[in-house]
Amino acid sequence: MNLTIVKVGGKVVEEEQSLNALLDDFASLEGPKALVHGGGRSATKLSEQLGIQAQMIEGRRVTDAQTLRIVTMVYAGLVNKNIVAQLQSRRVNALGLTGADMGVIRSDKRAPKRMSDGQLVDFGFVGDVRDVHTDVLTSLIGQGVVPVLSPITHDGNGNLLNTNADTIASELARAMAANANVNVKLIFCFEKPGVMLNPDDDDTLIPELDHKTFKDYQAQGIVAAGMIPKLDNGFEALRKGVGSVVITNVQGLKSGKGTTLRL
Amino acid sequence: MNLTIVKVGGKVVEEEQSLNALLDDFASLEGPKALVHGGGRSATKLSEQLGIQAQMIEGRRVTDAQTLRIVTMVYAGLVNKNIVAQLQSRRVNALGLTGADMGVIRSDKRAPKRMSDGQLVDFGFVGDVRDVHTDVLTSLIGQGVVPVLSPITHDGNGNLLNTNADTIASELARAMAANANVNVKLIFCFEKPGVMLNPDDDDTLIPELDHKTFKDYQAQGIVAAGMIPKLDNGFEALRKGVGSVVITNVQGLKSGKGTTLRL
Repeated sequence: MNLTIVKVGGKVVEEEQSLNALLDDFASLEGPKALVHGGGRSATKLSEQLGIQAQMIEGRRVTDAQTLRIVTMVYAGLVNKNIVAQLQSRRVNALGLTGADMGVIRSDKRAPKRMSDGQLVDFGFVGDVRDVHTDVLTSLIGQGVVPVLSPITHDGNGNLLNTNADTIASELARAMAANANVNVKLIFCFEKPGVMLNPDDDDTLIPELDHKTFKDYQAQGIVAAGMIPKLDNGFEALRKGVGSVVITNVQGLKSGKGTTLRL
Repeated sequence: MNLTIVKVGGKVVEEEQSLNALLDDFASLEGPKALVHGGGRSATKLSEQLGIQAQMIEGRRVTDAQTLRIVTMVYAGLVNKNIVAQLQSRRVNALGLTGADMGVIRSDKRAPKRMSDGQLVDFGFVGDVRDVHTDVLTSLIGQGVVPVLSPITHDGNGNLLNTNADTIASELARAMAANANVNVKLIFCFEKPGVMLNPDDDDTLIPELDHKTFKDYQAQGIVAAGMIPKLDNGFEALRKGVGSVVITNVQGLKSGKGTTLRL
């Protein structure tokens, strides 16, 4: 089986027009597929409306009990179910999931972490993926079901945990690839059309990037800082057996443009 | 196949202690099962926190666009996923669903309705169930999956619709019963231990109620007004092939007490 896993985040999934365009393109992808989405802006907006200050430390959200309620509502409810209903209207048999549903993704609550300034930070109800149960997913995908995963997992002890959507996409890809029959293509849709020599010039898109060249570029300061963990993540997925990893933006889903990673 | 469908609503699912007790009892039910839940109080609370007045007409919520967002967040996100995670921790392989997921329940947006005072009321994004697709549900239940349904459906055109949870439970029961191999037991958990001659005296519980007696009681004003649509709904399910309908409260799940309806 071939399986295309698409990760989309940011404002793409949170604005009606861009979401519709994305879902048109996603719906037209052939063969078995799955979608992983974020929804951070909507969560921040709801937090503000409720008078709760979203607490970010080094770009990561601190998930206290109130914030966990908010991200559960926004990611697993609002964003996820609207995507599912929209895909159903495009004749894609979408099934919205969190990691808790059918126990597909179990995670461990992150221990307090020492930050670069020496401060010990408890990120709260944040989960690091422990395992992905692929059997039931494989069976459903084989029946034409298209999983739509929101970035909420569980610890198996009744607690939901806020989990990075990029991580969910790559862990899902790795786990499905480890299942011998699945050839996984993992597509990350970010803001930029791919990895570029000059982030402000789309003509400098790198169509293929191998790991050694990436490390060279990184040493020379060519790759944008925010892209480095995403690329590390992508190369790690390749090493773990994912067939193909592509970094692109939403337009790349249709055009096929983007940066393909190579080991 | 036997299938027990339990409908729970009200504050039972919205307070941690009563929810835990309910889920312990639900987890201990033997054989294939499904849970249908509400969550209206939490939705009203979130509406209030957001400064949106919940508009009720003759006991029914008017679902404008803002309210649809709220009930989607609360029912399909917060309440549903917490129940799923809690059931998973009790080794019940729960799968949280709206009607949009795998297209299991499609509904029609309700047309504006003439009320008893002559006023024409548009209830907004409210759905009346059109059809329930049982094939994929039957297959999942056969594999040990326990569906947990939130009262949100879709119209097939990309719109989510707020749908009465009692109706979802009985429509699901009818549809599964119409599938020749499924013998359905439908249990409604309300506040009272069942149908009673005197609602204030638990000793007047009616263990079995046939349709003729119900109609006699109704004519005599013995049955509480709020119970009448629920009983009509239950008898209708029996007529449509549901094997057994029981009206009880959460304690009745464990004790087996309650009112069993007979045609």
